Formats: sequence, C-alpha cells, structure tokens
Amino acid sequence: MNQIDTFYAYNPSTNELLEDEFLNTTKEELNKVVAEAVRAFDNYRKKDKNQIADFLDQIAQEILNLGDALLERCHLETALPLVRLQGERSRTIGQLKLFADFVREGSWIDAKIDTAQPDRTPMPRSDIRQMLVPMGPVAVFGASNFPLAFSVAGGDTASALAAGCPVIFKGHPAHPGTSAMVTSAIEKAIEKCSMPKGTFALVQGNTNELGANLVQHPAIKAVGYTGSFGGGKALFDLANARPEPIPVFAEMGSTNPVFILPEILKEKGDAIAIGMAVSIAQGVGQFCTNPGLAFVVKAEANSVFYDTLVQKINETPAGTMLTAGISKNYNKNVAHTLGLDHVSLLAKGQLSNLVNTAEANVFKASMQTYIENDTLAEENFGPSQVLVEANTKAEILEVARNLKGHLTATIHGTAADFENYKELFSILELKVGRIVINGFPTGVEVCHAMVHGGPYPSTTSSQTTSVGTLAMRRFVRPVCYQDYPSSLLPQALKDENPYSIWRLVDGIFTK
Amino acid sequence: MNQIDTFYAYNPSTNELLEDEFLNTTKEELNKVVAEAVRAFDNYRKKDKNQIADFLDQIAQEILNLGDALLERCHLETALPLVRLQGERSRTIGQLKLFADFVREGSWIDAKIDTAQPDRTPMPRSDIRQMLVPMGPVAVFGASNFPLAFSVAGGDTASALAAGCPVIFKGHPAHPGTSAMVTSAIEKAIEKCSMPKGTFALVQGNTNELGANLVQHPAIKAVGYTGSFGGGKALFDLANARPEPIPVFAEMGSTNPVFILPEILKEKGDAIAIGMAVSIAQGVGQFCTNPGLAFVVKAEANSVFYDTLVQKINETPAGTMLTAGISKNYNKNVAHTLGLDHVSLLAKGQLSNLVNTAEANVFKASMQTYIENDTLAEENFGPSQVLVEANTKAEILEVARNLKGHLTATIHGTAADFENYKELFSILELKVGRIVINGFPTGVEVCHAMVHGGPYPSTTSSQTTSVGTLAMRRFVRPVCYQDYPSSLLPQALKDENPYSIWRLVDGIFTK
Repeated sequence: MNQIDTFYAYNPSTNELLEDEFLNTTKEELNKVVAEAVRAFDNYRKKDKNQIADFLDQIAQEILNLGDALLERCHLETALPLVRLQGERSRTIGQLKLFADFVREGSWIDAKIDTAQPDRTPMPRSDIRQMLVPMGPVAVFGASNFPLAFSVAGGDTASALAAGCPVIFKGHPAHPGTSAMVTSAIEKAIEKCSMPKGTFALVQGNTNELGANLVQHPAIKAVGYTGSFGGGKALFDLANARPEPIPVFAEMGSTNPVFILPEILKEKGDAIAIGMAVSIAQGVGQFCTNPGLAFVVKAEANSVFYDTLVQKINETPAGTMLTAGISKNYNKNVAHTLGLDHVSLLAKGQLSNLVNTAEANVFKASMQTYIENDTLAEENFGPSQVLVEANTKAEILEVARNLKGHLTATIHGTAADFENYKELFSILELKVGRIVINGFPTGVEVCHAMVHGGPYPSTTSSQTTSVGTLAMRRFVRPVCYQDYPSSLLPQALKDENPYSIWRLVDGIFTK
Repeated sequence: MNQIDTFYAYNPSTNELLEDEFLNTTKEELNKVVAEAVRAFDNYRKKDKNQIADFLDQIAQEILNLGDALLERCHLETALPLVRLQGERSRTIGQLKLFADFVREGSWIDAKIDTAQPDRTPMPRSDIRQMLVPMGPVAVFGASNFPLAFSVAGGDTASALAAGCPVIFKGHPAHPGTSAMVTSAIEKAIEKCSMPKGTFALVQGNTNELGANLVQHPAIKAVGYTGSFGGGKALFDLANARPEPIPVFAEMGSTNPVFILPEILKEKGDAIAIGMAVSIAQGVGQFCTNPGLAFVVKAEANSVFYDTLVQKINETPAGTMLTAGISKNYNKNVAHTLGLDHVSLLAKGQLSNLVNTAEANVFKASMQTYIENDTLAEENFGPSQVLVEANTKAEILEVARNLKGHLTATIHGTAADFENYKELFSILELKVGRIVINGFPTGVEVCHAMVHGGPYPSTTSSQTTSVGTLAMRRFVRPVCYQDYPSSLLPQALKDENPYSIWRLVDGIFTK
C-alpha cells in the first residue's frame, strides 16, 4: 500500500509514530457505510424509546468495559494527562446517560394535538397532531481537543443517536486508535441491543477529501462538527452548495471575552487573577471556551490584579499540545502578536525544551490598539489572552457592541458594578450563547439548560447547542399528522398517551 | 420622477393600471428603516409578554378597523373574490390572536433551570438557566397569493413580532395598496400600544435589488419568505454568502402528491373525485398546497373516479390569476405538458375570453412516462394536476421513495389499504411536513400542531414551519445564564416563576 492509503498516529510528546497502521476510508467504502446507514435508519427510527435509551446506556457501559487501555492509547495519541482523560471519560458516559434518561422520559419529542372540531363553522377543523421525527443519517466530525467527549461517542453522536439518526463518524486523524476503540464499544452495544448494523460507522483518514465526500453524499441529512473556523466554514459552504442543501451545526470556537468591572477589580482583583490564570491555561488552552480576551477599565487599583496574574502565569508550566500543527500555529500567532506595535507581553509562563509545547502568554493592549488590530480579537487556540485596557465605561460598552459572535461572555462585578453596567448584560445577550457571572467560561456543564453555541462565527447555527439535551433538536424536524386513524399514529400521539409524556393538547400542557 | 422610482399596481381582471402611485424604496431609505429597527429592537425585545400580546391583538383590531375598503382595494389588486378575502382577513386576525394568546401564556420561551450543586464532587455545579431570546430585526417577503394572511400582517410578521423581533417587510409588488393599508393599521397599533417606532416598516418596490439589499443588510438576522423556488433559493444563496450568514426560512411551494389506494378507489371513487376537483382548482390553483400530482394503481374500477373527475373538472369555471406573469407561466407550463409524448389531457375546465385567466387541467401519464419526464413532478402554480397510473404496489412505493421534499402528502385508503400500504406512511414521513389521511391538502389550519414546511426543495429549512405557533421558533435562539443573581435574571427564569409558565427544572416539567 502507498502512503495515501494508510496513516499513523504519532505521540505529540515525542513526535514518534505510534505502532498501529490505519486505513484511509476509500470513496467506495464510504458509499457502502452510508448505504448501510440508510438501511439502518428505516429500522432504527422505529425503535421504541426505551430501546434507544437502553442502547445509549449500553454504549456507556461498553466504553467503561474498554478499561484503562482506552485511556492509555488516548494519552499516547493526545498527550492529555490520564487524570484529565478519566474525567473526560466520565463526562462522555454522563452525556450518554443524560440523553438516555431524556429519551426514556420522552417529552422531548414535543407532541402536540389539536383535536378535531367537526361542527366548527364555516369549516370543520381536522384532527391535527405534530411531533419531532429524526432527519436521517448524520455526519459527525470529531474534535481534536476532546478525544472522548467530542469524538466518536461524544455529544454530537449521542444526541443524533438519541434523536433516532444513524451516525457516520469522521474520526479526527490525530487519535485514530482512540476512535477505533470507542467504535468497537459502540459496535458491541449495537450487537447486544439488537440495533441494526449501520446504526453507527467510523470512517477514518487524513485528507480533507473524505470529509467533503461525506458531507456531499446525498443520503446525509445533517452535519455535526467541532473544530476550527476554517474547517467548519468549508463544510457549511459545501453543504449549502449541494443539490439538496443540508444544515451544518459547526461549533468553531471563539475568544470568549471576559469583562472585569471596576468595583470587583478593587475588591477581588487577587482572586479573579488566580482564577483567570487557571482558566487561560486549562487544557493547555485547548478548549473552545478558554478566555482569550479580557477587558478592564484603566485604574490604579488594577495593579493587584495585574501583579497576581503575572505571578500566576509566570508559574504556569508549559504543556504539550495535541498536535504539532496546533503547537506550530499557536507559536506563530504568539509571535505575530508580540510583533504588533503597542502590544506588550504582560506575563509569560514557564518555558520548555520538549517538542510541541506551549507556554502561557498574556498580552496587554490599549483599547485604541485593540481596535486597530483585528487579529487581537481572534482566537489563538492555546494558553494565551489579550488583556485590553479601556479608558471609560463608554468604551467598554462600545467594544461589547462591536463584538462578533462568541460561545460565551463573562462578567465579573459587584452588585454596584452590575447596576452601573446594566446595559452590558443586554448587549452581550445578543452576542453569545452563554453569559457567565463571576465565574470562568471553561467548564461546560452537561445539562438541560446548557448552551454551547452562539452567533456566527462561533457557530454556523446560532439557534442550537452542541452540549446539553437541546442538542437533539439539531437532528429532528416537525411532522404533522392530519386525520390519522389511531392505529396509524405514532405512540407519542395516540389519544391514550401510552408514553405518559407531556403534550400540548388544544393549547394546554398535559400529561 | 422617472420610471425607476415609482410603480403602479394593476387590476389583473382588466390589465388596467390602478390609480395610486407607489415609491420604490431607495437604498438610503432602506438603510434608514433598518437602523430604526435596530434601535427599536433594543426596546421592543424587553417588553413584557403581555404588552407584546396586546400589541398583536391591537394589530388585529386595527386591520378590522380598515373595514371593507381594505378588501375592495385588495380585490382590485389581486382579482381574488371578496368572499375569499373576507375569509383571509379572518384567518389573518385569527393568526395574530393565536400568537397573542401563546405569548401571553408564555411557556413557549422554553425556560429551563438546572439548579446549582455547590457540594458536588469533584466539581461543584453552577446554576444554569436557559430560555429563547429574539435574534434581531427580521426581513419578511410577502407572497402574491395571500395578500393578507401571508403578507404585511401575515404569519411570518406575526410570528416574528410575537418572538420579539422587529420586522422589515418587503411588500409584494402586485398588491402595494393592500400592503400600505395594512401597514397603516400596524402603525396605529404601534402608536396605541406605545411600541417603539421602527418595530415594523414596509419597503416597496418592483425590483429584485431591493430584496437583495435587504437580505444583505448586516443588521438583518433572519429572513422569512413565501413564494417561488427561484426567489427563495436566490435569497438563501445571498444569505449564506454574507460575511455573517443568516437563516432563510423560505417556503417555496410543492406539488403535494396524493396517493389514492385501490380499495378506497373502488368504494369511494366518486366522492374522492369530487373533492379532488375542488382541491385542484381552489383559489385558481394558487395555493402552496394544491394537489398537483396524484398516483393510482391501474384498475378497471378506477373508471368511476375518472368519470367523475372529468365531469367535475369540465364544469370548473376558469378563474383570473393573481398576475399576468403567473397566468403566462401557468399557460406556458400547460402547453409544455401537453406537448410531452404519452401524456394525455384527461380533463379540461371551462374556457374564458378574459385576460389572465387559467383553466383547470388534469393530465394523465403512465408511471414510465412520469419517470422519464422530470417536469411532471414539478409544481405548475395553478389549477392543474398530473395523474399517474402505476401498474403495481411496488411502483407506488418506489415512486414515493424517489419523491423530493414536499409540503404535504395525502393518502386516501380504507383500513385494508392502510394495512397493505403500511410502508407508504413510513416513506412519506421522511418526504413531507404534513401527511393528510382521507382528505385534501388545501386548507392549512392555523393551530399549534400545524406544520407548513417540509424537506428541500419545498423549503430551505425543513426544521421549521411557517404556519402555527411553532413558527415563532424560527426567529429565536437559546441563551444560557450561568450563576446570575436573581435581580438580573429575565422574568421567565426567576426562582419564583413570576410568569407562572411551564419550565424544565432539574429535568422535571413544573409550573
């Protein structure tokens, strides 16, 4: 076989190739697995909700059954510490179980019944019922930075399977062994739960062509993606140019601006600086939600905050990044920022002689400099932050008004600050998917109320989330059933409510 | 003023220009009204839900206050009969009131609360809350065929205003006087309800440029559209090519296939033919849901159905179409179909010497001919149908599998038919937004459970509807509030539930 047909993972801590060889999925193989997904869909979407819930639980169990071998392979491929990977495995399993519970409860399907009014004048009213139905096979692209929680059995896969859609998963080429192991767990769950073959398939490869072919395949009905802006936007454009355009739910990261208001900076500058240093460097800054941008109003009292931040960043050890490419890109962007006029390096973390490492960097710029340099507002994936000093409250509000879309925004303040900056909350509500008060944006809770999404360019679809139970809505569409005989109605819509779910009946929520 | 700056409506029954002159909105004026909408948004979106509900009710009242003058002008511009326009006005008002009631009830905002777990290990959980927030100023394009219900104060406008979004409405150039009158009613409601100026604006014109400029304006955050495939797809492409892509909810019509199964055709061929003839010609075939395509299995017993259909279509009077362009296009497509090999004219309605009229036409083709001629599956906006004879059940299922996306599909059958064609229901569920049993697709009920939408190419977004209360979801996005002090939380998310709405609290629906 030649180089095009196979690829290897490498250890980012050493740049050494890892043992196993992986096959690039060919176009013929891709067509075959998509055809299998289409066949599987017809059966899978008709499974009882409890069967789907049990299947999700079983996937969680099979991932646990892989034992430490999964974490060890994953560590080799990603350089992420084992303790972090343990946590990520818990998150992945928790996610699957949350979706399982949500599906089992069943009300997510949004059943609505408007009963017939045969005697209405001038026209009788038909019996009209509605629920959400799965759209079809979904393509999911794995992220580099969460090899478990946003990868093969991650949130996109879990929400698509929960919604009743088969998944064709394009594994991230940086961790193919991890992807293969988790796939084996899903395959075991498919077998144990008697789900149709083709409900899940992994395709692997280190070319863009494979992903493009996947998104362009006519049987694929939606796309989930977590990764860079360039990758997500390219898939979005491909999907819209199809003969049948399909939705692309791409989460493309952001700079996650943090606003530290004047009073709290006086009162708690020290504590905020400690938390900020941790949040900047968490995961070697390789989260979608690291705070890459912060705003303060210039004041003498800020020195406590600065001093602690400098000290904490100086103490921050360098970390190995996920791939050589990510490390190279981070360091290139750091060098670019360092070269900008009037941008100063406020603090730098500990250096390292190891390969593919990143040191923490906090830059400082005036508002004027920030406004004049567009790149300061852009994400540099890694442990860096640009700290911008405004002169006035008006400048803070103005900079907020001019923000592009982000996943999160954070405000630190006292009650007096909040009163004084009331408008800031209102502005940020239109700019982000999640607003955090007196906390840090890293740490995305998996729950019903989470929004991990936001206006463009943080995502290609601001109306959804990729974390939390609302994520299922990405892969369903409403269907209306008019004058159906009871025997033909889906369970969720029968008069007797066999699922005992919440439904909107003639405008009234009822169980 | 030169020709480019003004335009006139004309009476499609006579081709005579109507009196009033209308100004083409200039780009400068467009920019001005969008800027006003942006300012209005900041105030409008913070209105209490009861204020928004009252505003919608007041718009309904002000439309009624326009009296018969509205219907008369509308009749002159559209040739739609006064009795139909009375019904359409009722529908428009009913729509506004349904959204008002839905907003007043308040649970549509989908409030979710996951309470804090400060003692959770290894990490405490934050307090996380979520609700839907309006996206911003929305552009809406009026349809030609519903000058009231899908125009200035129609479903798109009502759902956007209900969701908290200002509307810039591009009036259809065929009925500018109607648009201006309804706009005056909305303006009165804005004043009486003390809503901000700029909450609604009408822009008018007879060029594509105006619509393009509107969709490309950076402050516009979503687009609602009802009309032709060409128009909707052009707006979709423009919106995706923006520096910030925005969603386009275009309802572009469809052919609405009807399947008449063998047993019912024997039992009720006569009654179905009578209903079908009415549905084909309703509104001179100018609905998005007229049944343009029907499938039967060849059988001797079909002759009763055919005979009645021929008789009823022969009796159908010609009707004046909405515009000269629509009439010309209809007749061109009829001539094209007549010219196809192996397509026969089964029945033709009464002829007319008047201008811009359309006669009903029902064509008959074999399955083979249908498969060989793509145009037979395409919508011809007007009172025509292509009736396709299959040889077997397998052919019926195969043709269903190969359907593109439609707004509706209809199945006529007995209990035995349904049992025998069970698979058909399953196939159609993936092809359309609404399945009608033993009825006709025309007549789109305005209610909670309605879906007026469907897979591409019937719309550009299969995940929504343009009729019914779910339509509001097109113009909102979820926002997550993390660790908010109660004083800063929106009313819908405060612990004490001041709105008394249904909320998902720690996974449990509660009021």
